Amino acid sequence: MRIGGADLRPITALPGGDGVRVIDQRALPHRLVFEALRTPEAVHTAIRDMWVRGAPLIGATAAYGLALQARRDAGDAALAQCATWLKAARPTAVNLAWAIERLQALLLPLPASQRAPAAWAEAGAIAEEDVAINHAIGRHGLPLIEAVARRRSGVVNVLTHCNAGFLATVDWGTATSPIYQAHAAGLAVHVWVDETRPRNQGASLTAWELAQAGVPHTLVADNAGGHLMQRGLVDLVIVGCDRVTANGDVCNKIGTYLKALAAHDNGVPFHVAMPTPTLDLTLADGLKQIPIEERSARELTHLQGRSAAGEVLEVAIAPEGTAAANPAFDVTPARLVTSLLTERGVVPAREDTLRRLMQDQRP
Amino acid sequence: MRIGGADLRPITALPGGDGVRVIDQRALPHRLVFEALRTPEAVHTAIRDMWVRGAPLIGATAAYGLALQARRDAGDAALAQCATWLKAARPTAVNLAWAIERLQALLLPLPASQRAPAAWAEAGAIAEEDVAINHAIGRHGLPLIEAVARRRSGVVNVLTHCNAGFLATVDWGTATSPIYQAHAAGLAVHVWVDETRPRNQGASLTAWELAQAGVPHTLVADNAGGHLMQRGLVDLVIVGCDRVTANGDVCNKIGTYLKALAAHDNGVPFHVAMPTPTLDLTLADGLKQIPIEERSARELTHLQGRSAAGEVLEVAIAPEGTAAANPAFDVTPARLVTSLLTERGVVPAREDTLRRLMQDQRP
Repeated sequence: MRIGGADLRPITALPGGDGVRVIDQRALPHRLVFEALRTPEAVHTAIRDMWVRGAPLIGATAAYGLALQARRDAGDAALAQCATWLKAARPTAVNLAWAIERLQALLLPLPASQRAPAAWAEAGAIAEEDVAINHAIGRHGLPLIEAVARRRSGVVNVLTHCNAGFLATVDWGTATSPIYQAHAAGLAVHVWVDETRPRNQGASLTAWELAQAGVPHTLVADNAGGHLMQRGLVDLVIVGCDRVTANGDVCNKIGTYLKALAAHDNGVPFHVAMPTPTLDLTLADGLKQIPIEERSARELTHLQGRSAAGEVLEVAIAPEGTAAANPAFDVTPARLVTSLLTERGVVPAREDTLRRLMQDQRP
Repeated sequence: MRIGGADLRPITALPGGDGVRVIDQRALPHRLVFEALRTPEAVHTAIRDMWVRGAPLIGATAAYGLALQARRDAGDAALAQCATWLKAARPTAVNLAWAIERLQALLLPLPASQRAPAAWAEAGAIAEEDVAINHAIGRHGLPLIEAVARRRSGVVNVLTHCNAGFLATVDWGTATSPIYQAHAAGLAVHVWVDETRPRNQGASLTAWELAQAGVPHTLVADNAGGHLMQRGLVDLVIVGCDRVTANGDVCNKIGTYLKALAAHDNGVPFHVAMPTPTLDLTLADGLKQIPIEERSARELTHLQGRSAAGEVLEVAIAPEGTAAANPAFDVTPARLVTSLLTERGVVPAREDTLRRLMQDQRP
């Protein structure tokens, strides 16, 4: 994204090619901190501890992680071990496994001596493809916003959950791409930003990046979306996704399902921005088959903020010793999804359509 | 409630009868702070700034506020002015207006000299009636929990939103009353406690009071309820309410509607604990007619917690200058409500039943 006259991306290759520079997103919105990752171990930590997050960005970062391994030891065993270990850093996002497996498929037939440069180039290709995919998602999604603007005067209100913005990808974001393109086209668009407990990606990341890009937005509690829809204050919902099954079930940040129910109850279109690498045609039922990551209770009982003195510190917000459960994702059944916004076009969340979408593009 | 061998109530009359002692609930769960309120102004502040909250507790506290005014000046004009002003402290809860109007109806026919003691006695009566009402709600609600326990082995899982516990009432709570009575009867009951952003009444108050009472519970993000219900981890939902209309629409803490949608989608019973003073038969449509309080954006962008050093302080959790919208309540349409748990019995959320319920008990 062009922010203040310069390009800002959450991941870029270091000039020497010996690592990547990422934004440590844990410090946002309080500080913009860059970190260099120069080893597979650093990449694993950055994914596991959510310095980087968002399915597409996790995929690109993991690809660079395996490429860094190939520089160190490109033998079959070393690569396979590193691949398995990187894939385990976050269990839910399908892009992580997708990116790693794509690299492995490329590298294994090559002689070991050619693997390191090939891996580095392929990781870069995955990153650039993500940019192109997300730009195309925005191009296909833009007409949905334009249609509302044509239908009536006033601002078009989009609600989004979590962060499926440029910070979750290599650029543009998925759910935000139509929004950024509408804003760039001069449409009056306003975003309701779900706070997104427990990690507050909406308040910390989406609000931050929309502010950087100058897109009008209002932060709301996750609890507020149903009320806003009941009052006609939401024209459409656009969210991202971490995995979509062959039947169109959408796994995304915990709480997405509740917004989909409210959208359905109020006749508000509910769109899911889905790069096709996030589609997992091997799974037939999201509820039964997608493993849901259970994260630390501490994410719920503790929280990072900025004190009046400007210090960033962690505070406890629950009684000491309170037990907490922290499922990180939920599954929205396909029946509640109006459409999937993909880089190949806008399609219904249906198995026949999804299989056709993928077949048409095969070589 | 008997807590640690002693009675603990969020409001008690001071021995001298010149005020009330309340728990300043803003300090929970970090500290248990009591404050004495000796003037109508102190009562107004305590209600407006949410030292006390919860519809039944607001009603009882406001009654004491008008009684304190009657001690100072019991003239018609002074009482009327104070009544209007107290009613404006929180706009949504019907109990506030109900309690104030009950006192006014009692006082106005009396000579001014008799008003102060009569008001004090009536405020005490309202408080004790609340205790009796809530105990009866628990008695009527208990069989719903017992039925689950009879149907299958294992713990009965109840999900609740916000705090409709003893801290929201004079004693027992409304939504928690069946839970406390089930726990006291030796049933294995476990409570999923919604955090309840933005004021975190679940994490701060419900988790705290359930811990005090020894009831097993687990804190979850507001986003998690749908996922828990999809996985069969919720046997029933019980929430409180701030106002219920003649047609059975339920106004309650923001986010309640989303949980009702999820319960409906998963066949989970959704019960609303409703003391009949919370029923407003003058309104026919909750969505159109109940004013929804819009609270400060700061409740969303800032948050109070306990630092590692044990200091309680406020931190900012959004980018500086972020706009935030903070509707405090939403309306759950009657069609999503399985039943209303009242002190007079368990009834469906239907106008005919509700009107009959109130008529049957008239003198």
